[in-house]
Amino acid sequence: MSENKPKIVAITGAAGNIGYTLCAMVASGQLLGEKHRVFMNLIEIPPVLKVLAGIADELRDCASPQFAGVKCTSDLKEGFKDADIIILVGGKPRKDGQERADLLMDNGNLFVEQGKAINEVANPDAKIVVVANPANCNALILSKHCPKIPRKNISALTRLDHNRAISAVTGALDEDDGLISNPIIWGNHSGKMCVDITNIKIDGKKTVIEDKFQKPIQGMVSRRGGEIIKQTGKSSGLSAAKATCDHIRDWVLGTKEGEFVSMAVLLDEKDPLVKEYGLPTDKCFSVPVTCKEGEWKVVEGLKLNDFVKEGIQTNIEDLQSESDCVKDLLK
Amino acid sequence: MSENKPKIVAITGAAGNIGYTLCAMVASGQLLGEKHRVFMNLIEIPPVLKVLAGIADELRDCASPQFAGVKCTSDLKEGFKDADIIILVGGKPRKDGQERADLLMDNGNLFVEQGKAINEVANPDAKIVVVANPANCNALILSKHCPKIPRKNISALTRLDHNRAISAVTGALDEDDGLISNPIIWGNHSGKMCVDITNIKIDGKKTVIEDKFQKPIQGMVSRRGGEIIKQTGKSSGLSAAKATCDHIRDWVLGTKEGEFVSMAVLLDEKDPLVKEYGLPTDKCFSVPVTCKEGEWKVVEGLKLNDFVKEGIQTNIEDLQSESDCVKDLLK
Repeated sequence: MSENKPKIVAITGAAGNIGYTLCAMVASGQLLGEKHRVFMNLIEIPPVLKVLAGIADELRDCASPQFAGVKCTSDLKEGFKDADIIILVGGKPRKDGQERADLLMDNGNLFVEQGKAINEVANPDAKIVVVANPANCNALILSKHCPKIPRKNISALTRLDHNRAISAVTGALDEDDGLISNPIIWGNHSGKMCVDITNIKIDGKKTVIEDKFQKPIQGMVSRRGGEIIKQTGKSSGLSAAKATCDHIRDWVLGTKEGEFVSMAVLLDEKDPLVKEYGLPTDKCFSVPVTCKEGEWKVVEGLKLNDFVKEGIQTNIEDLQSESDCVKDLLK
Repeated sequence: MSENKPKIVAITGAAGNIGYTLCAMVASGQLLGEKHRVFMNLIEIPPVLKVLAGIADELRDCASPQFAGVKCTSDLKEGFKDADIIILVGGKPRKDGQERADLLMDNGNLFVEQGKAINEVANPDAKIVVVANPANCNALILSKHCPKIPRKNISALTRLDHNRAISAVTGALDEDDGLISNPIIWGNHSGKMCVDITNIKIDGKKTVIEDKFQKPIQGMVSRRGGEIIKQTGKSSGLSAAKATCDHIRDWVLGTKEGEFVSMAVLLDEKDPLVKEYGLPTDKCFSVPVTCKEGEWKVVEGLKLNDFVKEGIQTNIEDLQSESDCVKDLLK
């Protein structure tokens, strides 16, 4: 194994609630599987560097064969240097009484800065996922400021919503011994996301979920994050960390035969499915994809019912309203 | 995979700092590998049950094929019912100004209660690991109160110290591209533990570590936990969670060819190595083991130098002093 050059994985917000469990998973081989070694570049704001140094020691103490080393920094260029995988978890939380538009701008500015640093120093083939909210908007801003990175390499996390949809369907159907797959999250990682359960499989076999489940499941998934905070007093750390690993692992190593996953991506107007499904190319938009050899591809041949068609439209508008708030950062 | 009956994994202290990351790892298949499904019985004290319910939801949202379900309870018998793997993380922290003997008794009483419940309701073949400090003493107390569980199935965690020794040797040698294995932790998970580096391998090949490294590495490993707390303000959650998974996984699935690991176990006086190495049978004592088909076996044929012989003696005394504090619980 040690013949392979370790992949450099850069993580911002590494000492936070998601970051802590994510770091453990990455160091243990859950991100890229057992065959790949990872060197971790952990990035945090200066006041947290002492805590981060302790976390780095804990990662060393995992004594994992997949772990090739760790570097801690608050300097973006040092952190993104030669990075192959970039996971952007760090963001600014909403301040008391802050307007949504101001929050979008505050975070947006962070992603302008990160985009520029990535453009300058990262591996130009780096794969990037934005976890920090508003993730889709942040990813779009980022893409405008790192022209060296191909658009298709920039994504936002909707896998947590995808996994929550699996969890919701599993609960609704009470299918104790069947594995659910192939829900779809269309659009934005926000309360307006469209959860599409028309292509669900149980143990790999296509099944029909009754229409009556559509709205309750949509509601469960979109409210889930808030409910976890109410119960635990913290944001969904472990499930977000797991979803982030799932997102990258499937992207790099490929999705399973017959399965697709949800990723928010920047679509190419030449993609025939853009027209067929009515998808936008000026947004970071969640769609169903299959992955092979490190490339994602939108799933073909899906029939969209009215609920989904309306959901896609709602999400285009939702994301447009976000874009309007940060239009100066999208130039 | 769904043909296999899921293993029931009971975890106490599931909502704590170690528990949170541990739960994520167990649900994702890091405990028993990808081929086994786990049903998780999470046990917490009543005030934490609301938080625990949120964690359970997050585990469902991991949407992991290895995850078969979760139950939350503060009732020990409900929690240990039919458990195949029992991970005892929950304990009482030292109160301000509390004497060590009182802390030992406080925790000891908890393990009397847990032992009785396990005896009554767990799978009699259950494998048990105590993570809560003082882990070795707690495991010994537990063993006296669950006679239905074979002594060899009761263990305490010294794998964290073992992994820390690997990390310390890796750092000391600056061997960037060699994987370190086969340190030994002899005795107690306490400041007095003996860290033996005379059998270290690099990339599977025996190597000689200079004597000058022995004491610094011993010091680094035994002080590591305290240093992590100083840096992060929290106990070593993620590295303890990882070590716990390593402990159980190697025990159940077997150690790698040529490698051994450290486990604190209750030795059988018929074991010829008890006499050969001068080990105690009335303590839960950390020793080097190999595991195969779910059984651990002390490593034969090791030559113990004076440092190690003295270390074993010191640890017998250290553990005896703990036993003296809780002697009423050991009857």
